[in-house]
Amino acid sequence: MPKPIIAVDMDEVIADALAEHLLRYNRDFAHEPETPLTRDSLHGRWIWDAVPAHRVRDLERYMLSDDFFRVLPVMPHAQRVLERLQSRYDIFIATAAMEVPSSFTPKFLWLAEHFPFIPTTNIVFCGAKSILRADFLIDDNPRQLRLFQESSNGQLTREGILFTSPANVAVTGFRRVNDWLEVESMFLD
Amino acid sequence: MPKPIIAVDMDEVIADALAEHLLRYNRDFAHEPETPLTRDSLHGRWIWDAVPAHRVRDLERYMLSDDFFRVLPVMPHAQRVLERLQSRYDIFIATAAMEVPSSFTPKFLWLAEHFPFIPTTNIVFCGAKSILRADFLIDDNPRQLRLFQESSNGQLTREGILFTSPANVAVTGFRRVNDWLEVESMFLD
Repeated sequence: MPKPIIAVDMDEVIADALAEHLLRYNRDFAHEPETPLTRDSLHGRWIWDAVPAHRVRDLERYMLSDDFFRVLPVMPHAQRVLERLQSRYDIFIATAAMEVPSSFTPKFLWLAEHFPFIPTTNIVFCGAKSILRADFLIDDNPRQLRLFQESSNGQLTREGILFTSPANVAVTGFRRVNDWLEVESMFLD
Repeated sequence: MPKPIIAVDMDEVIADALAEHLLRYNRDFAHEPETPLTRDSLHGRWIWDAVPAHRVRDLERYMLSDDFFRVLPVMPHAQRVLERLQSRYDIFIATAAMEVPSSFTPKFLWLAEHFPFIPTTNIVFCGAKSILRADFLIDDNPRQLRLFQESSNGQLTREGILFTSPANVAVTGFRRVNDWLEVESMFLD
């Protein structure tokens, strides 16, 4: 019997991209009225919606810099829990990298550094996560979870698990995990 | 009712990587005994198995050069047929790019140039094609077709279609198409 497959998103799930955004933004615009931006101040909003409209391009510029996706902090416990999950599940990392093509190489190198136990055969750079054949997708983005759960014949059972981020705190309709300790309990207890 | 999904490989299916390999190899090693290598001389062999062992690294070096995947010829009729298929199928391009990470950007740019009608949401860079949720996969690699057809519960119906290349002429067990005109007949007649 093959193992069940869990697909796992990168940004805001195993990689703390928001931390790097906040760090660069608060450094570059320290003297503007809405600064400092904090996780709490984002409550229910994507960072794009929390900055003044003329600053959105600065957030984009951060993501297009060569090092952005290479230096992201790892989410607490993600490494240990994913390695444990591999004993009972087939783990794939699936990131919507097509949205930022310059992220391909830094994301690949970041995974090799921090998650060397994930074979490259199990890394997916995609756009719409409807293309993933997995039993579960752990993602912070409800749009991707909905795409993933869409079924062509109504018979498949795929479940999207919402990983909490400041932007999605008000989202309902999915089982929610707040951190990797909760992922561990959900899949291994 | 959602459209059926067709996933389509890149190298040897829409992109003629073999042509570029032969061109570079026959140029660089014109005076060696096994040269010129031709498509016919490969009959049933991957190019890796057709060159002397000490030349395999040269083939690898070609693929690691910045321009290799950027300059590949488009397979005849692939553009017209894929664009026609989009009216009745959801088309994804799925390439095992994780095997050659330096190919990410040239492959992405090549697709944007030659297949601008494929949205970036429908591009997948992966390793094992078992991860694809599609109804069909058109690929020249029988190993990937088998991975794709593997089912976790025996109930899904997914079909791998073998796209003829010199290396796979003796492979059996899949429906076979020899070119894009045959793909057009299979899916649109």
